[in-house]
Amino acid sequence: MDTRTPFPTTLYLGVDDMVRLVQRVGLPACIAGVAERIEADFRRWPEFDKSARLACHSADGVIELMPIADAERFTFKYVNGHPKNTRAGLPTVMAFGVLADVATGAPRLLSELTLTTAIRTAAMSATAARHLARPGSRVMALIGNGAQSEFQAIAFRDLVGIRELRLFDTDPAATAKLVANLAGLGLSVTVCASIREAVRGADIVTTVTADKANATILTPDLIAPGMHLNAVGGDCPGKTELHADVLRCGPVFVEYAPQSRIEGEVQQMPADFPVTEFWQVLTGQAPGRTSAEQVTVFDSVGFALEDYAALGFVYDTARALGLGRGIDLVPQAVDPKDLFGVLRGPVEALRIAA
Amino acid sequence: MDTRTPFPTTLYLGVDDMVRLVQRVGLPACIAGVAERIEADFRRWPEFDKSARLACHSADGVIELMPIADAERFTFKYVNGHPKNTRAGLPTVMAFGVLADVATGAPRLLSELTLTTAIRTAAMSATAARHLARPGSRVMALIGNGAQSEFQAIAFRDLVGIRELRLFDTDPAATAKLVANLAGLGLSVTVCASIREAVRGADIVTTVTADKANATILTPDLIAPGMHLNAVGGDCPGKTELHADVLRCGPVFVEYAPQSRIEGEVQQMPADFPVTEFWQVLTGQAPGRTSAEQVTVFDSVGFALEDYAALGFVYDTARALGLGRGIDLVPQAVDPKDLFGVLRGPVEALRIAA
Repeated sequence: MDTRTPFPTTLYLGVDDMVRLVQRVGLPACIAGVAERIEADFRRWPEFDKSARLACHSADGVIELMPIADAERFTFKYVNGHPKNTRAGLPTVMAFGVLADVATGAPRLLSELTLTTAIRTAAMSATAARHLARPGSRVMALIGNGAQSEFQAIAFRDLVGIRELRLFDTDPAATAKLVANLAGLGLSVTVCASIREAVRGADIVTTVTADKANATILTPDLIAPGMHLNAVGGDCPGKTELHADVLRCGPVFVEYAPQSRIEGEVQQMPADFPVTEFWQVLTGQAPGRTSAEQVTVFDSVGFALEDYAALGFVYDTARALGLGRGIDLVPQAVDPKDLFGVLRGPVEALRIAA
Repeated sequence: MDTRTPFPTTLYLGVDDMVRLVQRVGLPACIAGVAERIEADFRRWPEFDKSARLACHSADGVIELMPIADAERFTFKYVNGHPKNTRAGLPTVMAFGVLADVATGAPRLLSELTLTTAIRTAAMSATAARHLARPGSRVMALIGNGAQSEFQAIAFRDLVGIRELRLFDTDPAATAKLVANLAGLGLSVTVCASIREAVRGADIVTTVTADKANATILTPDLIAPGMHLNAVGGDCPGKTELHADVLRCGPVFVEYAPQSRIEGEVQQMPADFPVTEFWQVLTGQAPGRTSAEQVTVFDSVGFALEDYAALGFVYDTARALGLGRGIDLVPQAVDPKDLFGVLRGPVEALRIAA
C-alpha cells in the first residue's frame, strides 16, 4: 500500500500569466488585495523570522535576495536594481520569487515578481499613507515618473483618496508616458516644470526616482506643515532622495529598522536616530501622526514581508482562476532515497571511462 | 533606430531536462566536468563575493539561500533539508538555482539543482580527497547509503581511484538499493554490519548521513593512521557526525570557515580551533597532508561556490546540447520605463470601482 501523499507540483506563473491575472482581476483590485494582505501580515509582525536582505553590489547595480518565513510559509524574492539597464532596453528592476512550505521545504509557487513588485510597492506606500497622511488628503506630488509611477497613482487614488496629481521627472518623455497612461482614470493631472512647483500645495509627496546616487530630490524649504512624504526611491546604500534635514521635519516611519538603517533615507542619520517601525503603528504600540500640522515621513525600502503578502495573493488568485502551469523544478522521485534511480538509463553510460 | 540589445531569455532546465543532460553526457563525465570547474573556481577564490548562507530553521528542517558572485556572474541556490520528508515520499533535499548577469541583473538560467547538488557534492568531496587523501587510496567506507551515496561512489572511483567500497547504513533497504545501483560499475562492494566493520581497513571514510541531530558516527577509536575523513552529512547547526576528538586526530580542512564554524563538524570546537580553507591548499598557500600517517579531515558543508561551478557547467552544457527552453520569468517590456504598458488591456478595468 502506498501511503505517501501526492508530491506537490510547483506552480509556475510567468509574465504572461501575471498579465492575464491582472487583466482578469483588474489592477485596482490586485493592488487593493495585496494591500489587504500587507496590512494583515504587518499586524502579525512578531510571527515572522526576519532578516535584512542579502545584497550583492557591483559597479552598475545590485542583486538582492529577500527571504522571510512564518511557521507555515517561506518566501523569497530575487530582485536587481540597475539604473543603466534602460539604456540597453532592459528594465531597471527585474524580480521573481518563490513560495515554499516550511514543513517540507517543497516549493509551491515560482512566480514572476517584476509586475508584482510594482503592485506590492504601491500597495505598501498607500497602506502606510492611509495610516500616516492627513485625513482628507487629495493632492499628491509624484516625483519620478518611471515604471512604478502608474501603480503609485492608482494605489493612492483608491486607498487614500488622491484625486489630483502633480508630476515631475527630469525625463519629459517619462512624464508624457505617465500622463498618457493615466488618461481616463479619474485623476486630475498637472505636469510641473520643477520639483518645487510639483510639491506646492501637495498633501502627499511621493518620490520614486531611480538613480543610484545620493540625490536631494527634497530639501527642507520644500516641505509644508502637514505633508506626508512617501520616499520610495532611496533603497540601497549610497542611494537616497531626501536631504538629511528633511528627516528631521517630523517622525520617520520605516518597515524593518535593521534593513532601513542600511538602505533607507535614514542611512544618512546616526545609528540612534529615532525611527518607528510601521507595524507598531498598526498594532497601536507606537503613535503615528499626532497632529494635522505634523510632517510624517515613510522611508520605504521594500521589505520581504511585502513580497510574502504578494506571493500569497498571487498564489491563491492564480489557483482560483486556473492560471499558470506545473513545472518539474524538483524531482518526483519514486524512492526519495534513490535519487540515482531518477537518472536510470543504460548502465553503460556509468562505467569507468578508462 | 532601435539600438537595444535583444532581451536575454531565461533558460529553464527542469528535472526532465537534467536527466536528459546527464544521460547524454554520462554521469561520470558530469561529475568530472563539475569537479574541474570546482577546482578552477576554488583556485580563484579571492575573486568571489562570499557570504555564509542564509538559513531559515524550523522544527523539522531548514531552508537555505546560497548566493555568490564574481565580476561576471551571480548565482544562488535554494535548498532545503528535511530528514523526515522521506516518510511522506518527498526527497530530504530539494534544490534549484539561478545564474544571472552581474552587469544587468538579468537571470540567464533557472535550473533544477536536486540532481545537480548530488553531482556537485560528490565532485567537491572527490576533489578535496584528490589533494588530501593518501596517494594510492583504494578502499572507501561509505557510511550512509541514501540519495547521495551512488554519486560519492562514482566520484571517488573516477577521480580518486577507489575500487573497493565498504557500506553501512542503519536502514538495510538503503544499503540494498545502493548495492543494486552499483552493480556493474567496477567497484567491489562489501556490506558491513556496523560502522566499525565498515571503516576497518579503509583509506577513506565518507559519512553522508541525514539525521538532523548531533550524532557520533565516528569516534576516535575507529580512526586509523593515514585515513582521510570526508564528512559530508554534518551541515547545519545541531547536525554533526564526528565525535569532537576525531577533529583533533589531524588537520581539518573546510570550504569557507565563517560558514563551517556555524554549520560544520567544527561547530563543536572553540572559535579559535585551527582550520584550513581548502582553496589555500590548492593555491599552495597552506599545506595539505604532510605525511602518509597523518589523518586528514574534510569537514564539508556545501558552499555556494560549488553551485556556481555546477550552474556554469550545466548552463554551458545545456546550450551546447540544445536542452531546456526559454521562459518568461522577467518581462520583455518594450519601453523599460513603461511597466504599466505591459498590462495594457481595456481601460475600463482600471477605472475607480466606486
